[in-house]
Amino acid sequence: MSEFDLIRRYFTRSTPGALLGVGDDAALLKVSEGNVMAVSSDMLVSGTHFLPDADPFFLGQKALAVNLSDMAAMGATPRWATLALALPDENEVWLEQFSAGFFVLAQKYGVELVGGDTTRGPLNLCVTIFGEVPVQQALRRSGAQIGDEIWVSGTLGDAALALAHLQGRIELNPDELAVCLPRLYQPQPRVNLGLALRGLANCVIDISDGFLGDLGHILEASNVGAEIESELLPVSSVLRDRLTSSNLQASPERGGTGKEKVLQHCVLSGGDDYELCFTASPKRHAEILSVSAQLNLPLTCAGIIVAEQGCIVQDVSGHLIEMEDGGYDHFR
Amino acid sequence: MSEFDLIRRYFTRSTPGALLGVGDDAALLKVSEGNVMAVSSDMLVSGTHFLPDADPFFLGQKALAVNLSDMAAMGATPRWATLALALPDENEVWLEQFSAGFFVLAQKYGVELVGGDTTRGPLNLCVTIFGEVPVQQALRRSGAQIGDEIWVSGTLGDAALALAHLQGRIELNPDELAVCLPRLYQPQPRVNLGLALRGLANCVIDISDGFLGDLGHILEASNVGAEIESELLPVSSVLRDRLTSSNLQASPERGGTGKEKVLQHCVLSGGDDYELCFTASPKRHAEILSVSAQLNLPLTCAGIIVAEQGCIVQDVSGHLIEMEDGGYDHFR
Repeated sequence: MSEFDLIRRYFTRSTPGALLGVGDDAALLKVSEGNVMAVSSDMLVSGTHFLPDADPFFLGQKALAVNLSDMAAMGATPRWATLALALPDENEVWLEQFSAGFFVLAQKYGVELVGGDTTRGPLNLCVTIFGEVPVQQALRRSGAQIGDEIWVSGTLGDAALALAHLQGRIELNPDELAVCLPRLYQPQPRVNLGLALRGLANCVIDISDGFLGDLGHILEASNVGAEIESELLPVSSVLRDRLTSSNLQASPERGGTGKEKVLQHCVLSGGDDYELCFTASPKRHAEILSVSAQLNLPLTCAGIIVAEQGCIVQDVSGHLIEMEDGGYDHFR
Repeated sequence: MSEFDLIRRYFTRSTPGALLGVGDDAALLKVSEGNVMAVSSDMLVSGTHFLPDADPFFLGQKALAVNLSDMAAMGATPRWATLALALPDENEVWLEQFSAGFFVLAQKYGVELVGGDTTRGPLNLCVTIFGEVPVQQALRRSGAQIGDEIWVSGTLGDAALALAHLQGRIELNPDELAVCLPRLYQPQPRVNLGLALRGLANCVIDISDGFLGDLGHILEASNVGAEIESELLPVSSVLRDRLTSSNLQASPERGGTGKEKVLQHCVLSGGDDYELCFTASPKRHAEILSVSAQLNLPLTCAGIIVAEQGCIVQDVSGHLIEMEDGGYDHFR
């Protein structure tokens, strides 16, 4: 199979929303009247972001999902994508499943694959995604206002908990794994939430590197600080049960057990949540709860934006929680 | 140095032409009135496209150059780029030189780096480039007309000749290397030629995988064939001298010596030329020569488009040249 056969067989579908799709020197894209183009690239590397034997269908989904999450965080409607793919060999079963996973999610969100590159090399996936957003409604990181409420969608920490299990740092039972593993392997980008937050949120970020790390980007870009109530942070029933039982066992003078620290780390700093963190005026509280009901997606207010820079996390009794690390960083 | 420090230090420059550049979930780009966006991605992999010890300054230039070449081949004005970079470690000297090379070429062509991704992994560079072109003037591959002249910019084969030397398949002297190595390490994208060909050429492609292979894409997309005079194909004086002396030595009954085949391969199928191949009506011949003079860039007519599909290459005495292979293919 030649490089061009491979592209034709696995990666060429009709692209009625593009002026020109796969097969020329470049794709030609027309942005809708009154909109600007939102663009983001994410690279997934074998051994860094996934194991070499990762399920290719899930991998195809995830390569697009992490980019869709960036569109959600801008309030953009996803439209097109390019895929650059380095492959160690031409494994047709792998390509069949990878492309199937990619296109399932592409179809769900109306994304057309319009180009890219295919080459030989250590397995590496680079997706660039293109969305549209009316320029005044783009949801930047820099808009947080003092007094804003800090919101989080869905639940935090399940993907990191699944990873901790896979790495042997904690042991989950089959019921717990059934909840947590899909959060790691098949993250759900909050595209519809991003669209609903246009004109409602003051700033939005997607939580890919861990809640505290990504909230930190909002605080830095907006020149403000935050106070977070750790008990209010939304977690799944799996994590809630684990946290409760580990709290009962914890020896307070040591500041928590090792297991408790793993759990706390999953919620506050674990990566791969792909939820949205956003801030909005308290006056919009009811509207946000109404969006939550419409989308059937929990939206939880877990803190407020304050003038003093930095991020304070306190537990239910007002004790500060000290974190040893922030979010995930590939070079730290 | 954290991932974010690394991005700030080496890859964040001002982006006055973008509504929003590096540092948010996505960049925001506004296409000029009446234009559409041309988009292309190219991935360069260590060990496949360059040696692991390749000069990082040249590599930074080349990562952008190969993408600029795609904009040239669409007749698009390059405007923005994203860079996704997998690095085995944070080598600051390497990053300093790589980013310097990238931005030298970016400044030359007015390209702003507006986003991307940085992660750990085997060295891999994925650039996505964005350009603008008035929709009716985009130079597609599919427009070749029967009777069109087939043109090639610059000279063919020098980059492949340098590679053949590096791989020990041929030996070049220092003077020859001084001509050929820059063609391999510092390809010159023909951006200004692409712009000049708007409304003049019927179709354009950039020659990255070898002349015959890339011309083949035009023929396939346009449903036509081609007749090429091999003697007319533009080559540097280095290759001309080599071809002449190898022709004198060749034994005709064997269909050429091994060295002659290497040379022929460099011209017809060697990759990395990054010249443009285009077709235009014979009526535009004089205008094209005038573009050549204005840009101080040789443009050579080497054949014609015919109705019968396939590509015939003949030498000066009308003998057909048989090629064992087409252009470069990563999976063949």
